[in-house]
Amino acid sequence: MKRRVHIGVIGAGTCNEATYELAMALGREIASCGWILICGGLGGVMEASCRGCSERGGTTVGILPGLEKEAANPWVTIPIPTGLGEGRNVLVVRASDVLVAVSGGYGTLSEIALALKTGKPVIGIDTWKDIEGIKYVQSPSEAIETARTLVG
Amino acid sequence: MKRRVHIGVIGAGTCNEATYELAMALGREIASCGWILICGGLGGVMEASCRGCSERGGTTVGILPGLEKEAANPWVTIPIPTGLGEGRNVLVVRASDVLVAVSGGYGTLSEIALALKTGKPVIGIDTWKDIEGIKYVQSPSEAIETARTLVG
Amino acid sequence: MKRRVHIGVIGAGTCNEATYELAMALGREIASCGWILICGGLGGVMEASCRGCSERGGTTVGILPGLEKEAANPWVTIPIPTGLGEGRNVLVVRASDVLVAVSGGYGTLSEIALALKTGKPVIGIDTWKDIEGIKYVQSPSEAIETARTLVG
Amino acid sequence: MKRRVHIGVIGAGTCNEATYELAMALGREIASCGWILICGGLGGVMEASCRGCSERGGTTVGILPGLEKEAANPWVTIPIPTGLGEGRNVLVVRASDVLVAVSGGYGTLSEIALALKTGKPVIGIDTWKDIEGIKYVQSPSEAIETARTLVG
Repeated sequence: MKRRVHIGVIGAGTCNEATYELAMALGREIASCGWILICGGLGGVMEASCRGCSERGGTTVGILPGLEKEAANPWVTIPIPTGLGEGRNVLVVRASDVLVAVSGGYGTLSEIALALKTGKPVIGIDTWKDIEGIKYVQSPSEAIETARTLVG
Repeated sequence: MKRRVHIGVIGAGTCNEATYELAMALGREIASCGWILICGGLGGVMEASCRGCSERGGTTVGILPGLEKEAANPWVTIPIPTGLGEGRNVLVVRASDVLVAVSGGYGTLSEIALALKTGKPVIGIDTWKDIEGIKYVQSPSEAIETARTLVG
Repeated sequence: MKRRVHIGVIGAGTCNEATYELAMALGREIASCGWILICGGLGGVMEASCRGCSERGGTTVGILPGLEKEAANPWVTIPIPTGLGEGRNVLVVRASDVLVAVSGGYGTLSEIALALKTGKPVIGIDTWKDIEGIKYVQSPSEAIETARTLVG
Repeated sequence: MKRRVHIGVIGAGTCNEATYELAMALGREIASCGWILICGGLGGVMEASCRGCSERGGTTVGILPGLEKEAANPWVTIPIPTGLGEGRNVLVVRASDVLVAVSGGYGTLSEIALALKTGKPVIGIDTWKDIEGIKYVQSPSEAIETARTLVG
C-alpha cells in the first residue's frame, strides 16, 4: 500500500508577520500536493503552516507537548497530545518523511539535528545557518520542489 | 474551540472472526458519531475497528510501535510511526479521551491500566475480567452509548 | 562483560506498615545479592525497598516521572528524572531483567503487563491476583530465590 | 535532601585519540568533584569520559538507546537500557543538571539544543561552533570550573 508523504514543518512557536505569511504559503503548497502536514501543533510557524494547509482542504497533525488536545491551534485537524514535553520533538521527526525548517529556535534545532542523525532530509528556509546537511532554499515553492525530488 | 472526541480502541493484534466482526461493528459506530478513532495501527482488533470506521468515512489514527508508516493496516488514515515499541501504548492512552478494550492480551492490559491510572474511562467488551474501574458492556452499541455519557 | 542483575521493584506509592516492612525486607535481600534495584523512585513500596537495600549498602535507581531529582525518596542512590509522567513505567520495565510486584494499583498493573508483554519475568507478592504469567510467591526470600533461578 | 550534581557528557560515539584523552581527563575531574556522570552509554566520548571517571572511583550512568544493558561500555556503572533509540537523548538531557559537549555530531547537537531549549546550561569544548547559549571553554578543568559556578 502506497502511503501519502508526511512532511514535517518545524519552526518557532511565535514568529513575525513575514515568517507567518511564508509558513502559510508553505502550508498551501503542502495541501496542493495531497501530503499530510506533521508539526508540533502550537502557534507561530506551526499555526501558520496548518492554517494554509487546512484552508486548502489539507490534513494537519499536531503532535502536542502537553496532555490536552485543546492546546492545538485551530487549524490542526488531528491533535495528538503526548505529555512528553519537548520529548515530543522526537515524534515529530519520526512521523515525518522529510522536514522543512522555517526560522526557529532551539526546539527547531533539536528537530533538525534528530532528523539529520536518523537520515531524514531537512530543507531550510531562513533558519539555523551553516548546518551541514540542511538543504537551504529561498521559498516555499522551492522547498516543495526539493521535497518532491527527495521523497515524492 | 470544540474538538472532536478521540476514542481509543485497544485489543490484540490477532483475533478470531467473531471478535473481528465485533470490532468492525464498533468502528462503524465510531464513524457514525463523527469521532476520531485512535489505535495502535496494527492487525486484529486494531485493523477491524479501523476498517469498520474508515469504510463509513471515519478518520482513524494508528500510533505505531515501529519507524515505518507502511506497517499500518490499510484502514489507518493517519499512521504515526513512533519507534517506541510497546512504549507507544502510553501515547495511545494519552491521545484518547475514552478507551474501549475488545478482548486483548498483555499489551491491552497495559493500556487499560495506564488509562485507569490517569483517570481515563475504560469500557470493556469480552476483555480482561474483574478489573475494578472497567465499565463492562455487551455490545459495540452499548459501548458507544456508554462512551457518549462519559465524554460526548 | 558480565553485568549485575537489575531487579525492578514495583508497587504503590503509598502502602500500609505491613507492606512497607515486607518491601524493606525485599530491599535488604536485593542488597545481599549484589543486584541493582530499579524502581519508580517515589514513596510507599518504592521507598521501603530502596531503604532496605541502601541501608545494606546496595545501589538503588529511581526512574522518576517528573523533572526534579529532588522528588526521589532519600534512599534512591541514582535518581533519574524523566519528565515522562506515567510513561516512565515503560522505562522501569526496560531497565529491569526481572520484576517483583508488591501490592500495587493501576500503575503497578501497567508495569506487570508491559513486562509480561515483552517477555520479562514477573514475581508477585500480595499483588494483582489471577494474572496468568505472574509467578506468585509468599515472601521476600522466596521472591529472591525465584528471581535467582530466572536470571541469576 | 541535597542531591549530588548530575553532569551530562555528550559527544560522538567514535572519536580520535586527542578527543578521547580530553574526555578521559574530563571524566577524572568529574570523579574528583563527587558528581554523577550521565551519558548515552556507548563508545567514543561517552566511553572515554566514563573510563576516566570510573577509574577514579566515580559513578557513571549510561542511558542506552537499545534494550540490552550489555551494549554499555565497560566503564558504565549503571546502564539504563531504554529502547527509545535516539529518543533517549531527551533523557540524557533531563537527567543532567548541566551538560558538557565534547566534539560531537548531529546526536550531540540535538542534546545541546534540547538542553538550551529547557534552560539547562551547556558547556562546549571543541564542539559545534557559534551556537548562542553554549559557554565555550578550552579544557576539561575550565569546563568543570564553569560547571561549578553554574550548579555547584
